Amino acid sequence: MKLSKGVAIVGVGMTRFHHKTHAEKTSREIFVEAALEAVDSVDNGIQLGDVEALFVGNFSSDAFEKQGHTAALMADWLGLTPKASTRIEDACASSGVALNMGVFAIASGAYDVVLVGGVEKMRGLGTEEVTDTLAMAADGLYEVGAGFTFPGLYAALATAHFDRYGSNWEQLASIAIKNHHNGALNPKAHFQSEIMDTAIRRGERRGMAFKDEIDFLSSSLNPVIAYPLRLFDCCPISDGAAVVLLASEEIARRFTDTPVYIKGIGQASDTMALHDRADLTMLRATRLAALEAYRMAGVEACDIDVADVHDCFTIAEVLATEDLGFFPEGEGGKAACEGRTALDGDVPVNPDGGLKAKGHPVGATGTAMAYEMYKQLRGEAGKRQVDDVKNGLSHNVGASGATAVVQIYGR
Amino acid sequence: MKLSKGVAIVGVGMTRFHHKTHAEKTSREIFVEAALEAVDSVDNGIQLGDVEALFVGNFSSDAFEKQGHTAALMADWLGLTPKASTRIEDACASSGVALNMGVFAIASGAYDVVLVGGVEKMRGLGTEEVTDTLAMAADGLYEVGAGFTFPGLYAALATAHFDRYGSNWEQLASIAIKNHHNGALNPKAHFQSEIMDTAIRRGERRGMAFKDEIDFLSSSLNPVIAYPLRLFDCCPISDGAAVVLLASEEIARRFTDTPVYIKGIGQASDTMALHDRADLTMLRATRLAALEAYRMAGVEACDIDVADVHDCFTIAEVLATEDLGFFPEGEGGKAACEGRTALDGDVPVNPDGGLKAKGHPVGATGTAMAYEMYKQLRGEAGKRQVDDVKNGLSHNVGASGATAVVQIYGR
Repeated sequence: MKLSKGVAIVGVGMTRFHHKTHAEKTSREIFVEAALEAVDSVDNGIQLGDVEALFVGNFSSDAFEKQGHTAALMADWLGLTPKASTRIEDACASSGVALNMGVFAIASGAYDVVLVGGVEKMRGLGTEEVTDTLAMAADGLYEVGAGFTFPGLYAALATAHFDRYGSNWEQLASIAIKNHHNGALNPKAHFQSEIMDTAIRRGERRGMAFKDEIDFLSSSLNPVIAYPLRLFDCCPISDGAAVVLLASEEIARRFTDTPVYIKGIGQASDTMALHDRADLTMLRATRLAALEAYRMAGVEACDIDVADVHDCFTIAEVLATEDLGFFPEGEGGKAACEGRTALDGDVPVNPDGGLKAKGHPVGATGTAMAYEMYKQLRGEAGKRQVDDVKNGLSHNVGASGATAVVQIYGR
Repeated sequence: MKLSKGVAIVGVGMTRFHHKTHAEKTSREIFVEAALEAVDSVDNGIQLGDVEALFVGNFSSDAFEKQGHTAALMADWLGLTPKASTRIEDACASSGVALNMGVFAIASGAYDVVLVGGVEKMRGLGTEEVTDTLAMAADGLYEVGAGFTFPGLYAALATAHFDRYGSNWEQLASIAIKNHHNGALNPKAHFQSEIMDTAIRRGERRGMAFKDEIDFLSSSLNPVIAYPLRLFDCCPISDGAAVVLLASEEIARRFTDTPVYIKGIGQASDTMALHDRADLTMLRATRLAALEAYRMAGVEACDIDVADVHDCFTIAEVLATEDLGFFPEGEGGKAACEGRTALDGDVPVNPDGGLKAKGHPVGATGTAMAYEMYKQLRGEAGKRQVDDVKNGLSHNVGASGATAVVQIYGR
């Protein structure tokens, strides 16, 4: 895949991802909050009127809020009418794919400046209803009908990985510990406390003391959700929005002296149902999307200095770091355990806390990853800044891997 | 708007649009039926493996079938994995917008061959539930909460038009009569009988005789749905799918000696709620989308030889023929009444029966229009063929005009 012209990010905005912050808001209000922050963030200024088209990633405002025609509504509330507005739905990869659509739209010559956002307001429903609604992203006839929801599907992937490679739950736990550590450094994250702090706080309430994180995570305070995944292996249910402003390379420097270029993109699909796949220890769509993105960018896995990967469950981060080529097959869990994906490791992964700690308002996750890469590449990520970032990568997955999308960023 | 490269349609497929034909099927099966017909339709042959990406327009399989992640599912069932698959949602304009996304993707240089389809399976729900589900495309806070569903919203547009221009219900009725006439010539249409035939059939059952169509349409057998709109002013609730195969201009002739080029595209948005608009006698988004498409194609309204326009209600066809520039403001109804939009009129509109008679499985409507334009421009539209077609136009609207998309086709 080759594009006719280059595209850069020139501004970003994001609400906090949380389950209470947005309790009184609908998705239109959450989206506008992130979009206005993106507009305000542009170094040399930008007018809303400079934006020529809007792309919105959203999984299911239909089911969550009984509101469809989502993109037009966002254009309306942001004051962007009569500009073209388009909603993209690819499950939890909705805004990662919307980002690629924005890149296509600019590279095609149609537009020079587009706004790409993602939003999801999930917490209007109760936890069980949210789980059922998210399960619509799996195969309704063959998986959901048989009782599967996503914790179960990812538990199946974990079991297959454990079986083939001897990986284990302690490795998964190390990912949760790392991502909560990073989330504690991110003022926009859903969870902003180290797991040990949580252990102490929750333990005190019940008269329990834990000698370390694993002691707490192995306890009854971290119940099994779907074996081998426990509560802290799962991302929370959050509301939120994230927005990026894209400009064609010819005019990007009009808006900022330090644009972040999208140097490679890739997207692939796989069977909806896990039972149709030859191999459950990897996501083929991730591998193919990454291959495409690496080729377009002219870089390899070893050139990536920081990555945001799709860790809806801790096992998903293991699979991602292997499928993206950061570590050999079967060694993603071990690498995490050894600290190689920590902020000061050889490939820092999910410096913002990842879906696990930052939160996962599903339609907003892809653009939230681009938000983080923009901050990291410009050296503006504050306490969670990774040293000396030249190339960044974001990796957004739909459902249990029937969609995957990868972007590579550079200066 | 200018594109880096041209795009052509090289094959099309479509299921019948109907409420019973697909009763036992889910949307995945309906979609595959249309997609395989499109693949088979390619003059010089095409392999499914030649398709590099899939774009699917769909309003709400989430709400209609409790199935999201719709594009990946279609890729899976069509056998297109691991190719990139993307769902577009812009209410009833979903696949019209998906068509533009396919054009962007090719013009960007990313792909050479893409498959763009639309699908909706609505009839798993009852009529009232369908009406409520479709209402999710209006403003949930300010319109639906006040009791509006789409017949009411379009009735408001009709009332405003009647008031300003003195247009009337008999003019609307003439559109229903024309579109049922055209539908009777289209083997894929939902309704395939002239209104007079329906009048005789229904009249006989009740011992009633009607002297002409207006006599029948004014009777109790055509009840008021939302004043001034009666039953036959409204499109039916149908299931169906339509698919087009797009190729870059460089390689289009590899697949057929008579590709149909997409010479102009346009898209615009408007406020979701009618009460926020300055003028209810036109759809501003249609006007702006048309302006963009005419400019790109280098043609004017008077150059259009045939058009498929969005007639979800008869009044919508009046607005469309004015907003697209076929007739002066306020004269669309009169022009229809005078036969100027008939198959042998000066601008034949909805030769396939339109949404009114062909049916309106909402997500499939945009690509079904492209299907018709492909047939018309190649002279393959059978009994409904319009003479001497050089330029065609399709016009697809989301909701009450918060989205509009226009394409112009040429040889």
